Amino acid sequence: MRLSNIQSPSAVKALSEQELEKLAGEIREEIIRTVSENGGHLASNLGAVELTIALHRVFDCPADKIVFDVGHQCYPHKLLTGRGEAFSTLRQLDGVCGFPRREESEYDAFNTGHASTAISAALGMARARDMRGEKHSVVAVVGDGALTGGMCYEALNDAGNLKTPFMLVLNDNGMSISRNVGALSKQLTRLRISRGWLGVKKNLAEALRKVPGVGERLHDAFQKVKNGIRNAFIRDKFFTSLGFQYFGPIDGHDIIGLEKVFRSLKNVDHPVVIHVVTKKGCGFDQAEEAPEKYHGVAPFYIETGRSRSESGPSVGTVGGNYITELAETRKDICVVTAAMTESTGFGPFHKRFPDRLFDVGIAEEHAVTLAAGMAAGGMRPFVAIYETFLQRAFDQITVDVCLQKLPVCFLMDRAGIGGEDGATHHGLMGVSMLRAIPNMVVLAPRSEGELKDMISWALGHDGPCAIRYPRSLPKLGWTYKFFHFGTWESVSELHRDVAILASSAILGECEEALALLKEEGIEGYLINASTLQPLDTNCLRYLAKKKIPVVTVEEHFLSGGFGSAVAACCAKMKLPAPIAMIGIPDEFVPHGSRKLLLQRYGLDAEGIAAQVKKAVKQ
Amino acid sequence: MRLSNIQSPSAVKALSEQELEKLAGEIREEIIRTVSENGGHLASNLGAVELTIALHRVFDCPADKIVFDVGHQCYPHKLLTGRGEAFSTLRQLDGVCGFPRREESEYDAFNTGHASTAISAALGMARARDMRGEKHSVVAVVGDGALTGGMCYEALNDAGNLKTPFMLVLNDNGMSISRNVGALSKQLTRLRISRGWLGVKKNLAEALRKVPGVGERLHDAFQKVKNGIRNAFIRDKFFTSLGFQYFGPIDGHDIIGLEKVFRSLKNVDHPVVIHVVTKKGCGFDQAEEAPEKYHGVAPFYIETGRSRSESGPSVGTVGGNYITELAETRKDICVVTAAMTESTGFGPFHKRFPDRLFDVGIAEEHAVTLAAGMAAGGMRPFVAIYETFLQRAFDQITVDVCLQKLPVCFLMDRAGIGGEDGATHHGLMGVSMLRAIPNMVVLAPRSEGELKDMISWALGHDGPCAIRYPRSLPKLGWTYKFFHFGTWESVSELHRDVAILASSAILGECEEALALLKEEGIEGYLINASTLQPLDTNCLRYLAKKKIPVVTVEEHFLSGGFGSAVAACCAKMKLPAPIAMIGIPDEFVPHGSRKLLLQRYGLDAEGIAAQVKKAVKQ
Repeated sequence: MRLSNIQSPSAVKALSEQELEKLAGEIREEIIRTVSENGGHLASNLGAVELTIALHRVFDCPADKIVFDVGHQCYPHKLLTGRGEAFSTLRQLDGVCGFPRREESEYDAFNTGHASTAISAALGMARARDMRGEKHSVVAVVGDGALTGGMCYEALNDAGNLKTPFMLVLNDNGMSISRNVGALSKQLTRLRISRGWLGVKKNLAEALRKVPGVGERLHDAFQKVKNGIRNAFIRDKFFTSLGFQYFGPIDGHDIIGLEKVFRSLKNVDHPVVIHVVTKKGCGFDQAEEAPEKYHGVAPFYIETGRSRSESGPSVGTVGGNYITELAETRKDICVVTAAMTESTGFGPFHKRFPDRLFDVGIAEEHAVTLAAGMAAGGMRPFVAIYETFLQRAFDQITVDVCLQKLPVCFLMDRAGIGGEDGATHHGLMGVSMLRAIPNMVVLAPRSEGELKDMISWALGHDGPCAIRYPRSLPKLGWTYKFFHFGTWESVSELHRDVAILASSAILGECEEALALLKEEGIEGYLINASTLQPLDTNCLRYLAKKKIPVVTVEEHFLSGGFGSAVAACCAKMKLPAPIAMIGIPDEFVPHGSRKLLLQRYGLDAEGIAAQVKKAVKQ
Repeated sequence: MRLSNIQSPSAVKALSEQELEKLAGEIREEIIRTVSENGGHLASNLGAVELTIALHRVFDCPADKIVFDVGHQCYPHKLLTGRGEAFSTLRQLDGVCGFPRREESEYDAFNTGHASTAISAALGMARARDMRGEKHSVVAVVGDGALTGGMCYEALNDAGNLKTPFMLVLNDNGMSISRNVGALSKQLTRLRISRGWLGVKKNLAEALRKVPGVGERLHDAFQKVKNGIRNAFIRDKFFTSLGFQYFGPIDGHDIIGLEKVFRSLKNVDHPVVIHVVTKKGCGFDQAEEAPEKYHGVAPFYIETGRSRSESGPSVGTVGGNYITELAETRKDICVVTAAMTESTGFGPFHKRFPDRLFDVGIAEEHAVTLAAGMAAGGMRPFVAIYETFLQRAFDQITVDVCLQKLPVCFLMDRAGIGGEDGATHHGLMGVSMLRAIPNMVVLAPRSEGELKDMISWALGHDGPCAIRYPRSLPKLGWTYKFFHFGTWESVSELHRDVAILASSAILGECEEALALLKEEGIEGYLINASTLQPLDTNCLRYLAKKKIPVVTVEEHFLSGGFGSAVAACCAKMKLPAPIAMIGIPDEFVPHGSRKLLLQRYGLDAEGIAAQVKKAVKQ
């Protein structure tokens, strides 16, 4: 049975043990090939192949519901549920999404993308089932990394009360996006290295040997695991005390073994947790050896693991290095991250100042209040979190930081369109979320130089501050000179036909748009509105006085964003309203390359030029 | 030693055991008297008297830091730290705040008001201390109710790693704001009824007998506790497995006993949790018998416990009753609350449909995603949470509800100025928070009739929806007829001088303002903009066509609020901008009566009239 013949999970149920092994190998090949071409989440998906096959052999989807937490482990599921043929379009515009999407398939029970939501969602489904008198199964598949999120605990605490079937599969691959942190992780480690696991590892090693293509190299890499194995007893009190019946650890690469466990516990009339041990990156030795590196990857060459396109260091890395430099003399600098130390560019800081960086795991709420406590205690904490994930801590930013006017500086990485990860990963709400909070300052640099200057400014500012920036910034024609808080910067010659106000990466598209407009006889004036909150009212007054019509451009939802702020400010000051506000309309933005998405939403140079032209001509 | 002589906590350290008992009695009297006059949090503060005295005898504030979670137990602390004289101004405008406030006193280490933040904040302070080479103590005082919040768990998981002193005092009074829920609560119950507690209760009963004034009646009430006592062993694995050393349970009303424990554990170089058992409402028998009723109270007569001013049922109660009615035939209706079933008006629903209401404890994130799961499973959940607390779930509303366009209806109670609870409890960010999210609809009724119609409408709407309303609504002169989604309602005769757009409670002030303006020769047209998202663009076009200038009024921050939305919408449609946008400026609003606060911010009838007049004359 070949993967290409699996049109629905029912086909998986009929396979022999040998065929299953072959299928697992083909799924791995398909994932490795596709991710090497399109980028995506590799290590976690490779680890979940056998687990997913076993789930689909026991459960009858879509009647039964499987919720994959975060969705970093949903590729095998997608391949087994009718998306094998389309899989080559993974993460491309209008292609298969890298995360579960109800709108894509009835087999995707719940959309995920941000961590730690699956137990809550699955519990909701189980309760809906019970209220409606239905009988299907509900399974939440949660990685051990996601368990550091407090929401999981809120949900476990609640789910423990259930008197009907509910299955939690804890996919323990021993690491979250970076290393796991905290006490729970240690406890899971104890579980992992228990006697049960000792019995399991031999079979696993054998099974992995048979993975086509990459099996041989894998075996050697796997030897390393032994070093960590010690003889210890299982401590399962944690889940039991919350009301779950605990089973495990189970070898997460033994399909038949998993199947037995799932089948025997499927109809148990209370919550069960099945602790499954898997190997992240399983079947691809580069990924096994450096699973953190292969968590989310850009397209790469399979043979070498080298990236297909060399991209420079991220803007965050530049900021992180600069803060590391400053921290040599500024002893009050410290850093809080949420399971993304490397991705936010703070690896070097951590290496240099291990006692001044705190990675709290996937726990954004705690991260922010922890930083608030540090600031109240006299430190100057930087909180480095992707813009989309910082949404988790909106209340803590408001009550714990801004209400007390504490000097916490938020570094909101990956602002704007995030690209292939899609709707849950774009940073399109940062401005609306933060500008509504009293005492908050919101900045957005147009260059690495400006980011550094903003960081220096933030260290002297007696209050909260947020700096939002994307993965990378374009090089503008107009040389960057300095950042002056609250004062916007000219980034072109002064022209009278129209003034375009924008910040950060989208300034690149605006600059190109100006060139296009010039060909049409419209001469525009480009302004770097790098202080987003408060607005530069002097600049707005100046433009009005000079009778230069204003257009705002933002890589952000229009609702509540920068343009909306400018419109309100102009109304208040009795200045002419912007003649156009260009940005993302009121809809969720799908996955796809930033370039294509900008095009779709009229935010590429052509789109901006066309809209500006239309507004000017009116 | 009388309470009035305690100017700072150092005075407490010198008292004899007998004097301490007297002091505790006086603190109780003072709290009961003040809360009976000003309203406030009664039961939880009465339960924390001895605990707070013992803390201040052992720790040296302000050098040592005590963080009170939520702050529902901070009155004794305020009375012992220089705020005894001012205490009669509790919760009044410019008076003593009902929650810890750094800006009020150096003894308040951290502002609180929303639950479950203290461990994070205190851990931040402990780490700041260590990084700065300081030596003081840091103590987090957390009620068992707050422990249902996932943030606590994120923080405990992180704090377990600390290698320096850190003290968590778990003030276990056996209940959160309503009853405690979930497995942790059960576990704490087991702890509470353990052998240690059996030894403790006799002393407690004796001690309570001596509380002046209310001691006698108290003793009888206390007998009830016996019924719940069984012989069981302590199960302390929960905290231990997270890395804390556990001590308890300790009698939370035995000052000397508490003192010994605190003193002996003060300098232990790792995290400790001290499990203290207190009685909510201790010393005031009405409160002991019905602590839920006496959690947060309006001014009342001490003798009878009757409220000083009879207020009708809350708007939420009307909504809750209506939903209970509908649920008789609509079997798909269910309700999720977060430790506020009674306060949000869903007590009757819970009584009628115990299997269709889910109180998840103080766990707003889980509440929202749970509801999303229910909606995905075919139910029509209502999520009833105060507007300010719903901020906790901004990300879940975005990703788990709106992205999937799931039909969850949010009932955002206590929208607008909340009054005496202050900055952390006003609902002034609901519109800016929600209108930025694609697919979200935001409504605000002007009457109970309109609320009911909105609820009916929401049940037919295929997507998310939020209805925000205050504790009570004014009666307008213009009779309510019907709610028409997306279409604003005239609530006065059509007049041409100015159109005031507003919604919900503030319409009452606007109506009065119109009467004042009429005296000045300005005839205004009042419009109920009850659909806040999307805006009624037809109405805006109509007003522009008729050349009627627009003023927006909102009980909400101006940044990102309704006025700002109208300004942006007018700019987009090339309509004249609003001539004024009236609302709360970009600053946190303190505690005080709604009436006085409206006055301060120019949102009472006089203030609105003055601003409208100025705008019209310009």
